[in-house]
Amino acid sequence: MLRMSSLFLRTLRDDPADAEVASHKLLVRAGYIRRIAAGIYSWLPLGYITLRNIERVVREEMDAAGFQEVHFPAMLPKEPYEETNRWSEYGPELFRLQDRKGADYLLGPTHEEMFTLMVKGEYSSYKDLPLSLYQIQTKYRDEPRPRSGIIRGREFVMKDSYSFDIDDAGLDLSYSKHREAYVKTFKRLGLSYNIVSAMAGAMGGSKSEEFLAPCPTGEDTYVLCEKCGYAANVEAMKTLIDAPAHKDFPALEVLDTPNTPTIDSLVEVLNSQYGGGYTGADTLKNVMLMADNKPIAVLVPGDREVDIKRLQANLIGVSELRIFEEEDFAKHPKLVKGYIGPQDAKSFGITLYADPRIAPGTAWVTGANKKNCHARNVVNGRDFTPDAYVESAEVRAGDLCPSCKEPVIIDRAIEIAHIFQLGRKYAQALNLTVLDQNGKAQVVTMGSYGIGVSRAVAAVAEQTHDEIGLSWPIEVAPAKVHIVATGKEDKPFDVAESIGVELEKLGITVLLDDRRDPSAGVKFKDAELIGIPIIIVVGKALEQGNVEIRVRKSGEKSESSVADAVKNIASILSKLS
Amino acid sequence: MLRMSSLFLRTLRDDPADAEVASHKLLVRAGYIRRIAAGIYSWLPLGYITLRNIERVVREEMDAAGFQEVHFPAMLPKEPYEETNRWSEYGPELFRLQDRKGADYLLGPTHEEMFTLMVKGEYSSYKDLPLSLYQIQTKYRDEPRPRSGIIRGREFVMKDSYSFDIDDAGLDLSYSKHREAYVKTFKRLGLSYNIVSAMAGAMGGSKSEEFLAPCPTGEDTYVLCEKCGYAANVEAMKTLIDAPAHKDFPALEVLDTPNTPTIDSLVEVLNSQYGGGYTGADTLKNVMLMADNKPIAVLVPGDREVDIKRLQANLIGVSELRIFEEEDFAKHPKLVKGYIGPQDAKSFGITLYADPRIAPGTAWVTGANKKNCHARNVVNGRDFTPDAYVESAEVRAGDLCPSCKEPVIIDRAIEIAHIFQLGRKYAQALNLTVLDQNGKAQVVTMGSYGIGVSRAVAAVAEQTHDEIGLSWPIEVAPAKVHIVATGKEDKPFDVAESIGVELEKLGITVLLDDRRDPSAGVKFKDAELIGIPIIIVVGKALEQGNVEIRVRKSGEKSESSVADAVKNIASILSKLS
Repeated sequence: MLRMSSLFLRTLRDDPADAEVASHKLLVRAGYIRRIAAGIYSWLPLGYITLRNIERVVREEMDAAGFQEVHFPAMLPKEPYEETNRWSEYGPELFRLQDRKGADYLLGPTHEEMFTLMVKGEYSSYKDLPLSLYQIQTKYRDEPRPRSGIIRGREFVMKDSYSFDIDDAGLDLSYSKHREAYVKTFKRLGLSYNIVSAMAGAMGGSKSEEFLAPCPTGEDTYVLCEKCGYAANVEAMKTLIDAPAHKDFPALEVLDTPNTPTIDSLVEVLNSQYGGGYTGADTLKNVMLMADNKPIAVLVPGDREVDIKRLQANLIGVSELRIFEEEDFAKHPKLVKGYIGPQDAKSFGITLYADPRIAPGTAWVTGANKKNCHARNVVNGRDFTPDAYVESAEVRAGDLCPSCKEPVIIDRAIEIAHIFQLGRKYAQALNLTVLDQNGKAQVVTMGSYGIGVSRAVAAVAEQTHDEIGLSWPIEVAPAKVHIVATGKEDKPFDVAESIGVELEKLGITVLLDDRRDPSAGVKFKDAELIGIPIIIVVGKALEQGNVEIRVRKSGEKSESSVADAVKNIASILSKLS
Repeated sequence: MLRMSSLFLRTLRDDPADAEVASHKLLVRAGYIRRIAAGIYSWLPLGYITLRNIERVVREEMDAAGFQEVHFPAMLPKEPYEETNRWSEYGPELFRLQDRKGADYLLGPTHEEMFTLMVKGEYSSYKDLPLSLYQIQTKYRDEPRPRSGIIRGREFVMKDSYSFDIDDAGLDLSYSKHREAYVKTFKRLGLSYNIVSAMAGAMGGSKSEEFLAPCPTGEDTYVLCEKCGYAANVEAMKTLIDAPAHKDFPALEVLDTPNTPTIDSLVEVLNSQYGGGYTGADTLKNVMLMADNKPIAVLVPGDREVDIKRLQANLIGVSELRIFEEEDFAKHPKLVKGYIGPQDAKSFGITLYADPRIAPGTAWVTGANKKNCHARNVVNGRDFTPDAYVESAEVRAGDLCPSCKEPVIIDRAIEIAHIFQLGRKYAQALNLTVLDQNGKAQVVTMGSYGIGVSRAVAAVAEQTHDEIGLSWPIEVAPAKVHIVATGKEDKPFDVAESIGVELEKLGITVLLDDRRDPSAGVKFKDAELIGIPIIIVVGKALEQGNVEIRVRKSGEKSESSVADAVKNIASILSKLS
C-alpha cells in the first residue's frame, strides 16, 4: 500500500514554466516526472508505476499474440548500421559516441539491423518462420526540438517488434496480427485512436499505418473523413483528381504582366488587364528546390503552398531536400525568379515534378521564363510534360475524400504507434536468407512495429485529464483506489487503514492519504490532481458510520457503510475501464 | 506455456571461442545470451525471462523493505558530475558524448549525483527523512578489459539504491536495512556469498561491505578466516602487527654488496659474506611510484610485492598511481636504482609510505643509496621515519587473521553487491540540506547500495551449473518444469500438452518440448543444458500409464501415474529452492 506520509512525492501548485501541453503540466505538477535535460526526464514513484503498468499491458498483449520478447543493448556498434547506410542517413538525429579504443558506437534509435542479424544468427530454414520478436527498451533520438515533456523526448521507452516471413502473404498475416494486438492494447490503455494510412517510404517499405490518438495539442495532423472513416496522415493523403473539363485550349499566349512576382499580384493584373475572372487556383506555382544537390521544380496550383514534409515523404530516394536559396538562383541564371514556368524545364536541365492536381490536359497561367511576363493556356502534355507526379501540395480541410468524395476535416493527434511492412530492404542489406522447401535460399521479408510506451503515458494523460487534474483509466492508474482520511481524530485514519488493507487483499492497489497535517481541502486537491480512478473519503460521514465513494472521472458520489465499503468499491471498480 | 517448436532458441554443441568461464560458455550454448560487441550482449527469450526473474526478486525485496522505486535516464548532462569532480575523475571508464548542439553528456555509470539532486528538488525538512530510493537500470562503464561474458560488461543492469538521513545513526540504520534486504534477496536467488569488509575510499565514504559469491573463476580475490569467519577483500585486509622482538639494535652499518640489485641476489651475498641467516623477509624493498605526478616511496618487506590496487585503495586522495619508469629515475639522479634506502628520503624530497609490517622499532637490511652498497640495522624511528603507514604489501594465504590470529585462506569470488556509507560527500558538493528540528540547515548523510542484476544471472549460473549444463534455482529458472515428449506417436505429445496446461493453471510455468523431429537423446541433452529444475519425460513409461519426473540438480528420478503427475510435480517443486 502506498502511503502519502512516506511517498516520495511533492505536488506543485503551479505549472512548470517550460510546459505547454496539459500532460506535461499535470505530470510535473502531480509529481510523476521531472526534467533532467532537454527531452530527458526522470520518473518519480507514481510516474514509474504508471509507466510500468503500460509496459505490462503491452507485454501481455504481445505475449498473447505469440510474439517473443528479447532484449538488445541500447549502445550498438556502428558496423550493421553502416551496411544499411543508416549510420550516415540518420544524420544529426543519431547519438554517436566512441569507446576508449576509438571504436564507433551509436545509441539505438530503432533496431531493425540488430533484429535482422539476430535472426540470421539463429535461423536458417523456412520451417523456422513465421517469427515475431519484440523488446521494450530505451531508445535515443537527438530530436532537433524536444518538446511537450515526454511526448517528444530524446531518451524514451519504446516497444519495437519485428516480423520475419518467407513470403508476402506471410508478411500480410504478421502485419495483421500486430495490428490486432495493438487494437487490443490501446483498448486496455483507454486510448481512443484512429488508424491512419502513412508513408512507408523512409523506412524502405510498402504498407504502413499509424495509430493516432486525437488530441488538440498533438503534433501530428491528419486527414479524417467523418462520413466514411477514411483517415490518412497528411503525407499519405491521396488527391482526388477530376478529369479536365476542356480538351481544346487556345495556343499558349505570352502576356505582359509587369511587377507580378507573387500569385496575388499576378491575379490582380490578369483580371484588370486581360479579364476572365482568374483566381489563384488557375495559376501554376513553380517551386524550385534542391534535392540531394540537384535542382528540381515542383508544380502546384497557385493557391496552395508546397508541403515540404509531404513532398519529402513521397519523393522516394531523396534524402535531403531544401528550397532554392539566392545562391542556387545565381547558379541557374536562366531561372527568372517570380516568372518561372515549366515550359523550358528540360532545356534548363531541371527535373520537373507535378502535384497530381496538375493533371495531364489541364491548362494554367504560369511564368513565361522572362521578367515581367506570364503565359496563359499553358497545357500539360502540350506545352510541358512533368517527369513525374508527386503528392506535394498542402492538404486542407474541405479537400475531397479519395474514398467517398466528401470534404475531409483536418485533426490533430499524438502518434502512439506505427506499423510497417518493411519488405526485404534490411534482410537484403544484411543477407538474411532461409532455405525454402526446395532448398533454395530466399531473402526473408520483414515488418517493423512500434509503440511509444513512455509517450503513451502522456497520450493517456492528454485524452483523459480534465481541468482539475489527471484522471487515469483503471489499467494505467498508479493505484486503483485513493483513500483520504480527514480530521483530527484517530478513528478515520484507523478505518481508512483497515479498508486499505482489505482492498489490497483482493489485489486492489491503494494509495492511502494518511497525512495528519494537511487540511482536508489540500488532500482532496492532491487526490484530484493525482487522478486515481476512485477516491474514498473517510471523514465526516463516519458519524453516520459511512464513507464517501467518489468516481474521479464522472464526479459521481455515493455513500457506503464502512462494513460494505470494500464490497461496494470492488463493484464500482469492476464497472469502470 | 513456452514451446520448443516455436521458441526462438538454437542450442549450440560447442563452446564459443571467446568464452573462458562456465557461465559464459553455458549461457551462450543454451541460447540465453549473444555477444554484440566487447562487453555488450543481447538477451534471447530464455535469458531475458531469467534476467527479469532476478529483477522481480530484487524489486520485491526492495519494496518489502519500504524503499521506493524511481527511474533516471541513462544519458545524463555533464554538469552535476562536474560539481562532484567525477566528470574528470572517472577517466576513460566514462562513456561521454555530445548532442547536436555540442552539449556534453555521459552514460551513467552510477547515479549518486542524480539521486542527490532529485531529493534536493523535492524535500526540505528532517521530517521527510529517512528516505531510500532505488532504480533498476542500464548502466555503462567502458571497462578496459570487458570479459567473462555478462560478468564484466560495458552495458549492464544494476539495481542502485541511495539512502538519505539527517544523522549518522540514521545512516547506520538505513545501511542495516539494505544489508538485510540483500541477505533476503540472495537467499531467494539461491546464491551463496560472504559479506566482506571493503574499502569505501574511492566513493568518498566510510563503512563499506561487498557481497562476494565464491566461485573458482571469479575475478575478485578475498581473504577468509575459516575459523572465525572474518572476511575482507584484499584491499581491506588489515595486517596483524607483532611488537618488535628487540629494542636495541647496533648502529647502522653500510656493507659492500656488489651486483645485488634484487632481493635474491642480496640475500645470497649477505649470507655468504656477512653471515646471520638472512631471508628476504629481513630486507626492505623501496618501491618508487608516481602518485598524481609526485614521487613517493613505499616500503614493504623484501619477500612481498607491492599490491598496487591495494595501495591505491588505501592511499586516499590519490587518483593516479604508477610505478617509476626510466624517465622518472632520470629526473631523480640521487636515486640509485636497486640500492635505494629510506634513510635519505626527506633530503631527496620524496614522501615515504610504509606498509604496517615496517613497524616503528623494527630493523632492516636495505639499500644504502649508493651503487653496490646496502645497509643493515636500519631502524624505523632511528634511521628513517615514514611520513605515513599504508596497507600496501601483497596479502597471502597463511597471513594471520586480524580478528583471531589464525592463518587465513585466499578465495576467489564474483562481486554481486556492494554497500557503502557515503556520508556527506555528495550532499555537500550538491548542497543537499534539510532543516532540522531547530530550523537549522543540516547536510544530509547518504548511503549507496548496488546489486549487479545482469551479473547475478552469471553468478547464479557459475554457482549452480554442473558438467552437463545449467541448473537454475526455482526463483531464477526461466520455467519451473520442462516437459519432454518423445516418440513418434501422438499420445505422449497429447499427454505432455495436457500436463503442461494443468501445471500452468496452478501458476507453474512450463517449457514444453513438443518438437517431433529431434531424437529423444537430443531433447534430453537440450533439457539438461537449459537447466530448468524439473524435467518430465513423457515417453516409454507411458505404456505403464506413467511419466518420469527428474530433478535436474540431484538427478533423482521417480515415476508417477499420469493422473497424479501434476500433484506430484507440484509437491516436488514445493520442496526445492
